[in-house]
Amino acid sequence: MAGPSAPIITLLTDFGTQDTYVAEVKAVLLSTIPAAQLVDITHDVPPGDVLAAQYLLGRAWHRFPAGTVHLAVVDPGVGTARRAIVAGRDGHGLVAPDNGILTPVLDGARVIELAVPPSTSPTFHARDVFAPAAARLAMGGSLEGLGRSVSDPVRLPLPTPRRRGGEMVGTVIYVDRFGTLVTNLTPELVRGARQIRLDKRVVPIRRTFGDVAPGEAVAFIGSGGTIEIAVRDGSASQTLRADRNATVRVMLET
Amino acid sequence: MAGPSAPIITLLTDFGTQDTYVAEVKAVLLSTIPAAQLVDITHDVPPGDVLAAQYLLGRAWHRFPAGTVHLAVVDPGVGTARRAIVAGRDGHGLVAPDNGILTPVLDGARVIELAVPPSTSPTFHARDVFAPAAARLAMGGSLEGLGRSVSDPVRLPLPTPRRRGGEMVGTVIYVDRFGTLVTNLTPELVRGARQIRLDKRVVPIRRTFGDVAPGEAVAFIGSGGTIEIAVRDGSASQTLRADRNATVRVMLET
Amino acid sequence: MAGPSAPIITLLTDFGTQDTYVAEVKAVLLSTIPAAQLVDITHDVPPGDVLAAQYLLGRAWHRFPAGTVHLAVVDPGVGTARRAIVAGRDGHGLVAPDNGILTPVLDGARVIELAVPPSTSPTFHARDVFAPAAARLAMGGSLEGLGRSVSDPVRLPLPTPRRRGGEMVGTVIYVDRFGTLVTNLTPELVRGARQIRLDKRVVPIRRTFGDVAPGEAVAFIGSGGTIEIAVRDGSASQTLRADRNATVRVMLET
Repeated sequence: MAGPSAPIITLLTDFGTQDTYVAEVKAVLLSTIPAAQLVDITHDVPPGDVLAAQYLLGRAWHRFPAGTVHLAVVDPGVGTARRAIVAGRDGHGLVAPDNGILTPVLDGARVIELAVPPSTSPTFHARDVFAPAAARLAMGGSLEGLGRSVSDPVRLPLPTPRRRGGEMVGTVIYVDRFGTLVTNLTPELVRGARQIRLDKRVVPIRRTFGDVAPGEAVAFIGSGGTIEIAVRDGSASQTLRADRNATVRVMLET
Repeated sequence: MAGPSAPIITLLTDFGTQDTYVAEVKAVLLSTIPAAQLVDITHDVPPGDVLAAQYLLGRAWHRFPAGTVHLAVVDPGVGTARRAIVAGRDGHGLVAPDNGILTPVLDGARVIELAVPPSTSPTFHARDVFAPAAARLAMGGSLEGLGRSVSDPVRLPLPTPRRRGGEMVGTVIYVDRFGTLVTNLTPELVRGARQIRLDKRVVPIRRTFGDVAPGEAVAFIGSGGTIEIAVRDGSASQTLRADRNATVRVMLET
Repeated sequence: MAGPSAPIITLLTDFGTQDTYVAEVKAVLLSTIPAAQLVDITHDVPPGDVLAAQYLLGRAWHRFPAGTVHLAVVDPGVGTARRAIVAGRDGHGLVAPDNGILTPVLDGARVIELAVPPSTSPTFHARDVFAPAAARLAMGGSLEGLGRSVSDPVRLPLPTPRRRGGEMVGTVIYVDRFGTLVTNLTPELVRGARQIRLDKRVVPIRRTFGDVAPGEAVAFIGSGGTIEIAVRDGSASQTLRADRNATVRVMLET
């Protein structure tokens, strides 16, 4: 999958950084590829939150150069019958449990099921199953050499916007470290709109949060490509008392 | 100690990640070896918790390839008379304060005392004493070239299981980010047992936490090789109100 | 700016580590320089806290070898009219918003204003403006090639000590993860003094915190070169109820 030298391998997990789990995964990768370029996407996904993980993976993976291998493990079902899979898409390899975390890359991807040797620790497939597969892929191994083809990988789609009368109705799909509410509304869906409603609040749509006074709410096209609601120098989530799954509404131009 | 190019150096500290302490250590390492492969094991050891640090180091060090140098600094006695040491074991180098943190590697290790130049900052030996030694070791320097031999490094052993009547009595030696209770009981010590007692709770021993319903407690052979107690999709530490040093008991087969 | 192979690039932000922002910046850097040595200084600067960021940057940057490029982005004004700048100092390159974060390196530095293409995301200049500039610099690009010269970069100086009667009056300019109070008093300013006052508390100045009993307060010359106040095996900030901007006083020798 990757070139001959120093392949890039990213890691996205809910392992946190206080234990040795991430380091044990990296030890496996480096035992095969000592010069690998390892990049932590995050290890602070809320434990078991596959939806958050897929949002984060969907934002990040395509920004890395082709040849990158991504190891994405938020895996509440580890050790159960859920499959372990590898997806190939646009020159990237992605290694993950088959629980929906790879939803953002599945369209147009080839998907392979990894064999899980019976000797592996049933609670730490990241180290014992996914990392060896990622290392093989990063060394240039073929996707097909890793297992047999899968035609029905699990999909766990994020909510999609829907039109309802003269409104486009969307959903907050992620809340970031700053308390910014990330919605699933693309600019195309709400073209020309000047404001967005969140519960009973009406929030103006501007270019950036610098366009309102400190402490005020503002919506804009976020860096991930969808409408976000922020509070300047504050937390929209706290100030507006909104969290993931909150509904947002935009009156469409007629 | 390490090969000619891009040695691996791991870091395990209680410095946290909000200040520049870790980066200042890395700056010293990279000033000597710009291409070093630096791996954070963790920097979130509870401040001064040498026992937690030694558990984490004991899990992680041997998973890295021979030639790796490990810098392990949880050092409440920095600047006092405690020695600074380097241990060599199985082709790995380990640099640390002599306060017991290296206990898991001392059997069969050669141990050297590092000289502490009087000019060094008395509060930041990681940067001024340990990092330069780790860099020299990673560049291929000999252990013996770093100082004089030590025959009595400090040992701070974790509790060991003991047999008491028909029971094997163990201890919770670590609680991880998920609230999982890691005990010191190896599978060999409790072979055939079907359940483990924690205070008045009886927890079934199964293959993995997927073998019980969400919210239920289960014990299994953890990825570190000892019995762990978890709550599926929850925190065993919170649910069972147990923490490090809690006692666990297994009725032995007769 | 940097040598031909594997330049070092450091990152200092308030992005946190739970989202993908840091990884998206790294993806840009690695798309240009796949073998770059990336070092996180910290991503846990309190959101928007430019003063903390400049203290941290001031401690860390000069410890890295010449040729290092530093990307420092704590940027509450992103997307507003504030400039994006690059500074060159002692062979280091520093890329940042022009909001005072670069104050510690500006003396004797050449400073350039980066052009901000109108197509960039107004909320994520770290990825779309600063990272590409850092990559060009790390590839050996000249400072001058990045934009036009700036003669009046924003300065946001930390408080400076002042003499008042027979006392030197200083300020706590930073509180670290251990609760240690870092002051702006250098040893030269308080030469020979044996104690420091914080509110009504008198704290002895010793060599290191190992020189007092556990739980007691002690001042010493910290690893950043100024007087710090710590509580052995505890938090000075909590025990002494002091935080950033607290005043400290040292009676000068006469």
